Amino acid sequence: MAIKITGTGSYVPDVVKKNEDFNQNEFLNTDGSSIKQKNEVIIQKFKAITGIKERRYTEEHLTTSDLAFYAAKKAIEDANINPEELDYIIVGHNYGDIKHNTEQSDTVPSIGSRVKHLLGIRSPKCVAYDLLFGCPGWNQGVIHASAFIKAGLAKKCLIIGAETLSRVVDKHDRDSMIYSDGAGAVILEETKEEGGIINQVSATHTVDEAHFIYFGETNNPESKDHRKYIKMYGRKIYEFALNQVPAAMKACLDNSGYEIKDLKKILIHQANEKMDEAIVQRFYKLYDMEMPQDIMPMTISMLGNSSVATVPTLYDMILKGKLEGQSINKGDLIMFASVGAGMNINAIVYKY
Amino acid sequence: MAIKITGTGSYVPDVVKKNEDFNQNEFLNTDGSSIKQKNEVIIQKFKAITGIKERRYTEEHLTTSDLAFYAAKKAIEDANINPEELDYIIVGHNYGDIKHNTEQSDTVPSIGSRVKHLLGIRSPKCVAYDLLFGCPGWNQGVIHASAFIKAGLAKKCLIIGAETLSRVVDKHDRDSMIYSDGAGAVILEETKEEGGIINQVSATHTVDEAHFIYFGETNNPESKDHRKYIKMYGRKIYEFALNQVPAAMKACLDNSGYEIKDLKKILIHQANEKMDEAIVQRFYKLYDMEMPQDIMPMTISMLGNSSVATVPTLYDMILKGKLEGQSINKGDLIMFASVGAGMNINAIVYKY
Repeated sequence: MAIKITGTGSYVPDVVKKNEDFNQNEFLNTDGSSIKQKNEVIIQKFKAITGIKERRYTEEHLTTSDLAFYAAKKAIEDANINPEELDYIIVGHNYGDIKHNTEQSDTVPSIGSRVKHLLGIRSPKCVAYDLLFGCPGWNQGVIHASAFIKAGLAKKCLIIGAETLSRVVDKHDRDSMIYSDGAGAVILEETKEEGGIINQVSATHTVDEAHFIYFGETNNPESKDHRKYIKMYGRKIYEFALNQVPAAMKACLDNSGYEIKDLKKILIHQANEKMDEAIVQRFYKLYDMEMPQDIMPMTISMLGNSSVATVPTLYDMILKGKLEGQSINKGDLIMFASVGAGMNINAIVYKY
Repeated sequence: MAIKITGTGSYVPDVVKKNEDFNQNEFLNTDGSSIKQKNEVIIQKFKAITGIKERRYTEEHLTTSDLAFYAAKKAIEDANINPEELDYIIVGHNYGDIKHNTEQSDTVPSIGSRVKHLLGIRSPKCVAYDLLFGCPGWNQGVIHASAFIKAGLAKKCLIIGAETLSRVVDKHDRDSMIYSDGAGAVILEETKEEGGIINQVSATHTVDEAHFIYFGETNNPESKDHRKYIKMYGRKIYEFALNQVPAAMKACLDNSGYEIKDLKKILIHQANEKMDEAIVQRFYKLYDMEMPQDIMPMTISMLGNSSVATVPTLYDMILKGKLEGQSINKGDLIMFASVGAGMNINAIVYKY
């Protein structure tokens, strides 16, 4: 028996937000003081570090659950299954549904219930819930679904990562340029084939790290609203990720029964191009190797960081031939890896 | 091998909110029209249906994650385990941390990460996440933890249900009197004993039911804010629960290998006294039996409906001898059951 992904889907929102669209923003330091550089310079530096040229924002009339539904529908069609046979719908997200120009997260009913409703699935045996685990939430959903299948609780699961970070960005914060919206989904099934999920690791670091990514007020001291936005300590996250993620990836691979040379692709959470590259370089360094070319397909330059959506979207795009020069072939060993709020880390070794 | 609850804990908030404390509220119908009855009559009717005399509200300086932490700490002490050995912390909730006098839910980092931080657990292998599944979220966390143990992903799990519904109530809505705050927690472990979790069922009904419990605006048409509050279609929920919950409970028991006469206690989500009684009566009717006396311990009269917190709090109070005339003894077969937003239903047959 193997537990395999039998269908993928993603939804890339329509609104293209380019770096130059931030030219008129009043960026401020976290203490509210003004930044001495011009916006052009700020944006150029931002581009050099994160690799982001543009990102996607959700249209005004849509919310996270709509995006999740669109991606899910494609994954179901791709797997060619009857959605009534689904045992679980797991939605990884972090902020729920936030309507355009509103502040409150709406998570009742769960996004999973909303998606199931939109899909029109009638079977009550299809259990829908939401999983909050920072950016690695989609990976973690796959890990949980796999455990449900192993434990005899499920045979077919739909796992979605969906987020609309454009609804929680502070326009006075340079980091706001990182964030984007999107959704990716897969069907995970018990199959008679070989391969599939080989090994996984998960970790939560909270001693010093719990609040590295947090909900905080605007950088603008003149603002009278007390609305909160996604905020992060970028440097601390960078150091943490470089110290912890390569080791977690190594532990996952070393216990998989496979060797580093078997690994064909690493699909890493699209957090920040320079950070992602540094993580994968350090991972290979743990094996005294240089990072192979094309091992790490990237979408961040065009899609930004859409949290839980990046990894399933990346995987879907590769399989559908939408990422130039990238492919995954029958028998290829790949790794899904992620790091994010919590601070959480996970990795999955998977044989296609 | 058995998967058993080896420790319990709960946190009952300090602020007692009595029915008469609502005497000055301006209750309105959902269309904004005034209610013809006096508040004394409204409250008396409310009491007759729900059984609620008073409920508990969280102190102003605390949030859901604090309550979750207090309950978790007691469960860990009760199980007499080293918290560093925990493989999973699962927190069932629905609204995250909402500070007193604020609107926004804060779920980044997850409540699980916050609890782990507060507990001071250092091991990164202790994975913390949040599960959104309406009121049955704690039961569902137990079901998931049990699957993780069966699948070899975990040996010891902490499952918490924590909620502060007082932060999302509309003071112009009579239903607001139902809701309360609280937290309950258990340690679930792989043990060499017999019994423990025998069987479970979960269901999600979304065709017509997805939005029976939802986030909606105040009943006061003169209010200018667009803040959203917990809202429900009480009659629809009552009919749904009576049609679906007894059958789900029966399916769970019938597939457990035990008979109805073996069942010693039913710990049902404290939603509404009359509804809970009607559910359990109908459950016994499916076996052509009258509901036995004392089968259904209740806390709702004093604690209200604290969502995910009611079942683990009830269980903890019985085991600690805090519920007069109620006890659970070695070898007793019991059932945990719940219904709530999603609409979700679950039940667990458990041997103490």
